[in-house]
Amino acid sequence: MVVDGCPPRLALTEADIQPDLDRRRPGQSKIVSPRKESDTVQILSGTFEGKTLGTPISLWVRNEDARPEAYSEMKTKFRPSHADFTYFAKYGIRNWQGGGRASARETIGRVAAGAIAKKLLRERHGVEILAYVQQVQKIQATVDPDRVKFKQIESNIVRCPDATAGERMIRLIEKMRRAGDTVGGVVEGVVRGAPAGWGEPVFDKLEADLAKAMLSLPASKAFEIGSGFGGLALTGRQHNDAFRVRNGRVSTKTNLSGGIQGGITNGETIFFRVGFKPVATVMHRQDTVDESLHATTITGRGRHDPCVLPRAVPMVEAMTALVLVDHALRQRAQCG
Amino acid sequence: MVVDGCPPRLALTEADIQPDLDRRRPGQSKIVSPRKESDTVQILSGTFEGKTLGTPISLWVRNEDARPEAYSEMKTKFRPSHADFTYFAKYGIRNWQGGGRASARETIGRVAAGAIAKKLLRERHGVEILAYVQQVQKIQATVDPDRVKFKQIESNIVRCPDATAGERMIRLIEKMRRAGDTVGGVVEGVVRGAPAGWGEPVFDKLEADLAKAMLSLPASKAFEIGSGFGGLALTGRQHNDAFRVRNGRVSTKTNLSGGIQGGITNGETIFFRVGFKPVATVMHRQDTVDESLHATTITGRGRHDPCVLPRAVPMVEAMTALVLVDHALRQRAQCG
Amino acid sequence: MVVDGCPPRLALTEADIQPDLDRRRPGQSKIVSPRKESDTVQILSGTFEGKTLGTPISLWVRNEDARPEAYSEMKTKFRPSHADFTYFAKYGIRNWQGGGRASARETIGRVAAGAIAKKLLRERHGVEILAYVQQVQKIQATVDPDRVKFKQIESNIVRCPDATAGERMIRLIEKMRRAGDTVGGVVEGVVRGAPAGWGEPVFDKLEADLAKAMLSLPASKAFEIGSGFGGLALTGRQHNDAFRVRNGRVSTKTNLSGGIQGGITNGETIFFRVGFKPVATVMHRQDTVDESLHATTITGRGRHDPCVLPRAVPMVEAMTALVLVDHALRQRAQCG
Amino acid sequence: MVVDGCPPRLALTEADIQPDLDRRRPGQSKIVSPRKESDTVQILSGTFEGKTLGTPISLWVRNEDARPEAYSEMKTKFRPSHADFTYFAKYGIRNWQGGGRASARETIGRVAAGAIAKKLLRERHGVEILAYVQQVQKIQATVDPDRVKFKQIESNIVRCPDATAGERMIRLIEKMRRAGDTVGGVVEGVVRGAPAGWGEPVFDKLEADLAKAMLSLPASKAFEIGSGFGGLALTGRQHNDAFRVRNGRVSTKTNLSGGIQGGITNGETIFFRVGFKPVATVMHRQDTVDESLHATTITGRGRHDPCVLPRAVPMVEAMTALVLVDHALRQRAQCG
Repeated sequence: MVVDGCPPRLALTEADIQPDLDRRRPGQSKIVSPRKESDTVQILSGTFEGKTLGTPISLWVRNEDARPEAYSEMKTKFRPSHADFTYFAKYGIRNWQGGGRASARETIGRVAAGAIAKKLLRERHGVEILAYVQQVQKIQATVDPDRVKFKQIESNIVRCPDATAGERMIRLIEKMRRAGDTVGGVVEGVVRGAPAGWGEPVFDKLEADLAKAMLSLPASKAFEIGSGFGGLALTGRQHNDAFRVRNGRVSTKTNLSGGIQGGITNGETIFFRVGFKPVATVMHRQDTVDESLHATTITGRGRHDPCVLPRAVPMVEAMTALVLVDHALRQRAQCG
Repeated sequence: MVVDGCPPRLALTEADIQPDLDRRRPGQSKIVSPRKESDTVQILSGTFEGKTLGTPISLWVRNEDARPEAYSEMKTKFRPSHADFTYFAKYGIRNWQGGGRASARETIGRVAAGAIAKKLLRERHGVEILAYVQQVQKIQATVDPDRVKFKQIESNIVRCPDATAGERMIRLIEKMRRAGDTVGGVVEGVVRGAPAGWGEPVFDKLEADLAKAMLSLPASKAFEIGSGFGGLALTGRQHNDAFRVRNGRVSTKTNLSGGIQGGITNGETIFFRVGFKPVATVMHRQDTVDESLHATTITGRGRHDPCVLPRAVPMVEAMTALVLVDHALRQRAQCG
Repeated sequence: MVVDGCPPRLALTEADIQPDLDRRRPGQSKIVSPRKESDTVQILSGTFEGKTLGTPISLWVRNEDARPEAYSEMKTKFRPSHADFTYFAKYGIRNWQGGGRASARETIGRVAAGAIAKKLLRERHGVEILAYVQQVQKIQATVDPDRVKFKQIESNIVRCPDATAGERMIRLIEKMRRAGDTVGGVVEGVVRGAPAGWGEPVFDKLEADLAKAMLSLPASKAFEIGSGFGGLALTGRQHNDAFRVRNGRVSTKTNLSGGIQGGITNGETIFFRVGFKPVATVMHRQDTVDESLHATTITGRGRHDPCVLPRAVPMVEAMTALVLVDHALRQRAQCG
Repeated sequence: MVVDGCPPRLALTEADIQPDLDRRRPGQSKIVSPRKESDTVQILSGTFEGKTLGTPISLWVRNEDARPEAYSEMKTKFRPSHADFTYFAKYGIRNWQGGGRASARETIGRVAAGAIAKKLLRERHGVEILAYVQQVQKIQATVDPDRVKFKQIESNIVRCPDATAGERMIRLIEKMRRAGDTVGGVVEGVVRGAPAGWGEPVFDKLEADLAKAMLSLPASKAFEIGSGFGGLALTGRQHNDAFRVRNGRVSTKTNLSGGIQGGITNGETIFFRVGFKPVATVMHRQDTVDESLHATTITGRGRHDPCVLPRAVPMVEAMTALVLVDHALRQRAQCG
């Protein structure tokens, strides 16, 4: 992975990045894929004596537990709701071993880059970024975006700060794993402490960049910010966030806007929800076709996640941080 | 507006663009803003003898019914849930007359460019793009993305192809207008006929670009593709789209994926939903603050939309077309 | 023309832009094209009460003296060393009236944008940008980039600060005009007052961006910075710029580097030379072919420049300013 | 190095890339730096069974002979005409060991990517790219860009296809090395077989992109295409390239344009010249200052090139190929 655009003189070592990779890696708990990858990161270039140089940062994580032979059935058959067929349609060639570029292992790079972005935002801008599992299938957690703490999120293996809901989610995921089936859910992302004024007015609205970042994550299907789809039940009078002055600055009484108005932060907490579909690899026989257009079946096997949500949490944080840093730098360039 | 990147030798006159501007303009029906703008488009450059030259196309629409004096109260006060405050926070200066750059009049440019993109997709790629109002506040329409026709959409002023639901939506919007209040809803976008293979595998996934395009529209708060948030109730076995062969090509039995897998089209119908919040301008007194941080109130007045949905339909079509054209050209460049 | 990226709150009216357009326009003196274009600029949007808003600035200049009928011969014939043939090869269609997009009238937009950039650099960064004619055909002027003044440049119609050489250049250009022939030459560009630290280390080196900007100007064929091709006669010992301290900052004794080292400014005066070929339109019969691949001849007629150099001066200034502003903003974003 | 944008299904192994790295590496002859780097390349990802996948290609070359201790004097002192000072001014931090990012070792990535681009151009477009040393200090070679062959270029260690001039160049460089001094010169680049129609009309003119690419190379100071600065001695009548028909296609009698007109290829041979300054590291004491702004001296030592020209040849080829591929893909996207 190569991270370009990081400002110089930020203290940075592998210890700033590894914890988020550990939160993403397989094998971290009983409810995720049991593959054994230490995902140990090494900084190859871009820092000097523990500080960033302002030039690109090159990072390195080795695959350790790849088993290409486990994918031999995929050589000719397309797995349902995977990218095997679409890659073949696009490129006329595909690496069927492990999914190639479509493997979610590519998110290691995102999480590593995001860890750097999170540190930059925290140290230079006082911005805090969090994410957590808010829903697994139909089980919903109750969480206050303004108050949730990192420690609460990390207090259970599903990364749900609502302990009771978290327990139910874990039991459901375990049940799914035993059944060879999978479930999806919702990760909620939160940004606290961003100043008013970050974002762009038209095409690169902050919520637009967040939406793109989230929909670029594997298995995500939906995004909503602030009141989202739920806000449609309200009328304009009910939905508007009245302004008031608090602590000497403009604030809003409610926050249905989700911290962004007209594409630009208003200084309130940003929060949004990302929907992830159930994992496509199930341990059951499914109808499909092969490259020669013959009907056939395929059965998932191997070491897959019954639910991506716990591992998606650091991904959502990472993408959020990368979007926010981009806008922080743009704001400084244009209006600084 | 300047449209760059349109291929040469496409037949193009104002008559290709004006109909979509007419669908977007105020004053078109009793349920939208009564402002009188003809929004007549003129092509200034980029075509020759009725055909595109391959060089930028410059388009021109004049404002005819601007009333800056109507905005004098906004000179110092921030309207709730508008961009007045965030623009001021970002730029330290703002054009308070008519909202300036934050005015939804900027969508004229999008709709004009989108009309060109739609023509290109239709004529050169056989791709059809449609959008329609699927929901207004709590009223939902029943529409089949695979079969809905343009004529059905345009058969009523709310642009809902489900006539019964459309009638109810119109009545609700009229009621809101009388009450000086507003409502939001959902526009559904549909792409039919796109070949398998358009899109990108990681950051520029087609659904990610669609999400960004939709969230960049004024008042949009939410996006979901295929099964979206609703798909979270299903397990992986239920959610997967089994492959089959139909008409000599790979097809899927269901389409919960919404026509995109791994960021790339699979040849099925693409469909997605965009949530628009209720319009922020309501004809009631609301609490707010002014530039000097004093508490005050502001009351909306003037000629505003009680619901943006009918006018948002051509915007969603336009942004969809622009995203699709971009990926069509990228596909031709890289894999053509 | 649309200028995006200008910071907010810069005082800006048409009076800041018009002078540079006047220096570029035809009809300004006896040695340039006698076409009558006032090239009057109007700001359509992007400013409010005389200040930039931070949003795109839209500018407007009308063509007044276009004579499409003068180009009828070009309808089928390709003018030698013009872009008629290459546009046809690229696009399969071309606007043969006045050269279409290949007309140097496109440089109006560059000069207008450059005027804004020059003002920004002057007022916010203390940077001064100048250009002047240093050579016409074989006549070379003697100019010191560290001391040349705007007033000297504008003291004659060829824009050469060396009055004696300027006189000879003017006589040569007049002679060429009478002979229906043309000449080229060199414009030298100068940047004074840029701080050390602007530029990028690898692909976007400041001199690389300047080279691209200059070679993008119509009729330019060559670029050299600092010692340029002339420096090749020296050895490394002779060519190196020794460092010293002056006025409390790092400075160099000589400036063969031309103010840029490793892609980044060192605080010395930046200077470079741009070679412009003789204008392709000559009033003589020339061999060519037509669209049907038949051999034919074509004779230039009309109101053309015998030498683009005097009018190229504001173009070089403009492109220089645009490159410098870009790097000033990048530096502020990344290291500010 | 990561190469993005390469089309799928191009046969590609390390054997396609290594030869160009061997032409770039130190230690290849007696007239270049004696550092011992094998510069062995390994493809990490992006190919499958010997063919490109269409996804990014990751390449790996290890440093083997770095000697950080050789640079201890640079810890506080700025080397004249190097980037030590400007990096410090820009970033406020610098890796003084080996020049860090400013080291010409970064050109390994360019040459590797260029080797892939050259293969793509050759196999899919029939385009041939060559470069050679045309001048060392004052010694000029006589070379015909239309006929020069790769074998002639590689027939001597200075990469000059004019054997007599090449012998003199080698002797001069050896003399310089013994004297602890350095020399510069000119590399000429040639593109044969490009179709008419590649390029863009305004900002991204093909010659503009070539100019940027060349000026982004370490130590380059000048660029000219076609007649370049030399063409300024001619009048328009003499300089124009008359069109004719040859082999059933439009051709020019002369080629002072250098194969590009109005920013777009015309089907003739493209040729240009790049001026490289004498290497800044000389084995003599030079005046400089240190980070504390004290006057001091510094003396070059170690294993440096007395002349970069022979090693710059593959760099010029690489950058040329990368620019041409970009425009080939753009042409296919827009007009394909």
